[in-house]
Amino acid sequence: MSYIGRVLIYGGRGALGSKCVSHFKTNDFWVGCVDVEENTEADLSIVINTNDPLKQQEGIILGSIKSVLHDCKLDGVFCVAGGWVAGGLERDFVRTTDLMWKLNVCPSIISTSIASKYLKENGILMLTGSKAGLEPSHKLLPYGLSKNTVHYLAKSLVDDHNSLPMGTTVVALVPDILDTPFNRECMPHADRASWTPLDFLADLFFRWSIGEEKPLSGLVQLITRKSKTELKVLTSPNSSCRRIGNVSFMEVPELH
Amino acid sequence: MSYIGRVLIYGGRGALGSKCVSHFKTNDFWVGCVDVEENTEADLSIVINTNDPLKQQEGIILGSIKSVLHDCKLDGVFCVAGGWVAGGLERDFVRTTDLMWKLNVCPSIISTSIASKYLKENGILMLTGSKAGLEPSHKLLPYGLSKNTVHYLAKSLVDDHNSLPMGTTVVALVPDILDTPFNRECMPHADRASWTPLDFLADLFFRWSIGEEKPLSGLVQLITRKSKTELKVLTSPNSSCRRIGNVSFMEVPELH
Repeated sequence: MSYIGRVLIYGGRGALGSKCVSHFKTNDFWVGCVDVEENTEADLSIVINTNDPLKQQEGIILGSIKSVLHDCKLDGVFCVAGGWVAGGLERDFVRTTDLMWKLNVCPSIISTSIASKYLKENGILMLTGSKAGLEPSHKLLPYGLSKNTVHYLAKSLVDDHNSLPMGTTVVALVPDILDTPFNRECMPHADRASWTPLDFLADLFFRWSIGEEKPLSGLVQLITRKSKTELKVLTSPNSSCRRIGNVSFMEVPELH
Repeated sequence: MSYIGRVLIYGGRGALGSKCVSHFKTNDFWVGCVDVEENTEADLSIVINTNDPLKQQEGIILGSIKSVLHDCKLDGVFCVAGGWVAGGLERDFVRTTDLMWKLNVCPSIISTSIASKYLKENGILMLTGSKAGLEPSHKLLPYGLSKNTVHYLAKSLVDDHNSLPMGTTVVALVPDILDTPFNRECMPHADRASWTPLDFLADLFFRWSIGEEKPLSGLVQLITRKSKTELKVLTSPNSSCRRIGNVSFMEVPELH
C-alpha cells in the first residue's frame, strides 16, 4: 500500500490523539502511535510506561520506529500527550510536579529526539503547551511549570539549523480548553462555545502535514470564541517571516 | 548551644555550598545540609541519591529535618545544588535533559517544599537560576531549559501568600559564571575578573538571613565586572516595592 505521507502521534490513545490517528488514517497516511495503551487503528502502536527511566523509553520508541520505517521518514511528529493537575504548592507539590514532568515534558523531549532523527526536510514538529504556561502562576503551579518548559523547548528549537532536518517547522500549540469528554464531564455547565473542538485540530494537523497553511515556527495560540477558532502566532513583533535552513516561512496569523 | 539563626543549604557539599556551610557556622548559625555526600561541618547532613524517586527523596529529607528541628524553624533555605552540561539537541538530548532535571530542577522543587513547611515568617527561600535560562537557546538547551524552569518556579511563588509562611522572600539568583575550582580547571585562561567569587555569595546569603539588604522577591541577577559584583533585580519596571503577607519589601537594585 502507498501512503500520502507518514506521521507519528505521541499520545495517540488520548481524546485528541485518537482523533488524530483516525483522521490521518482516513486520509491515507501511515500513522505511528506512542502511548501507555495500544491504538489498534495505527500502523505502528508503541506502548510505553511513563515510570520507566526516560532514556529507556526513548530506546524502546526509537528501536520500534527504526524496525518498521527503515529508511522512510516522517512528515510530522505531533505530541499531544499530556496530563492536568489542579492546584499549586499546597497540594502535594513534589509529587504533582514530578507527575507533570513525566506526563507533559518527557513526551515533548522524546518527540524532539524522534524529530531530529526521523523527520523529512520541511517537516513539522508540534508540541503541546498551554495558556496556563504563558505566565507564572502559583494557583496552577506544577501544570503551568511543565507547560512553560514545553514553550521554552519549542522556542529554543526554532533557530536550531543543525540538529533538526532542514526546513523543520517547530510549533508549540497553546490551547486554553479543549472540548474533550473529560472536560465535559468535569465542567458540565460550562459554555463550550469557547472550547476548541478536537476535529478542528485533527484537520489542522493534517493540513500542516501536507504543507497547507503551515504556521511560522514558535508559539501558536488557539483562541476559540463563539465556536470559531483562530490561530495567533506569538512571536516577536518584528518577525512576519522567518528563515529555517533554506526555506522561508510566512506568518499566518489567522485561520478560519 | 544557642544559635543566631538556622538555615538549610541544599547542595552543601558543592563548591559554593561548602563555602556557605562554613560561613554560616563561623557566624554561629545552625546549618542543615542536603547533598549526595556528607558534610561533617554541618549540624545535620542529609545524604540523598538523585536517582531515587523524587517523592522518596523528599520523604527522607523532611523526615530528617523533623527529627532534629522539632518545632524550630529556619531563617533561610538556600538551594545551591546544580549541574552543567554543554550542548543542545545534538548531544544525547534525552539523557542530558533528564540529568539537568534531576540536578537543577528537583533540588529547587524539594527546597520549595521544605520552605513551605519549615521557614519562619519573613524568612528567605533562594533558588539558583542562570543567565543561560533567561532566553531560549538551542546551544545550551538542556541546561537552559532546567534553569528557565527554576526561574518560572521562583516567579510563580512570589505572589503565593497562602502556601509559604507570611513575609517569605523568594529569590531566584541569576549568576553568569561563578569562580569555582571546576570552572578554573575548565577555563584556565579566562578573565576571572568577570566571575563571581564564592565568598561574596556566602556572605550575601548570611546577610540576607539576618535581614540585611534583603532583596525584592523575584529574579536577582549577579553582574560581576572588574572583580566587583552588583545585584540587579529583574522585576517588572513598575514595582519598586512589593507586599508579601503584611510585610513590604523595597527594591535593592545594587549592592557593593
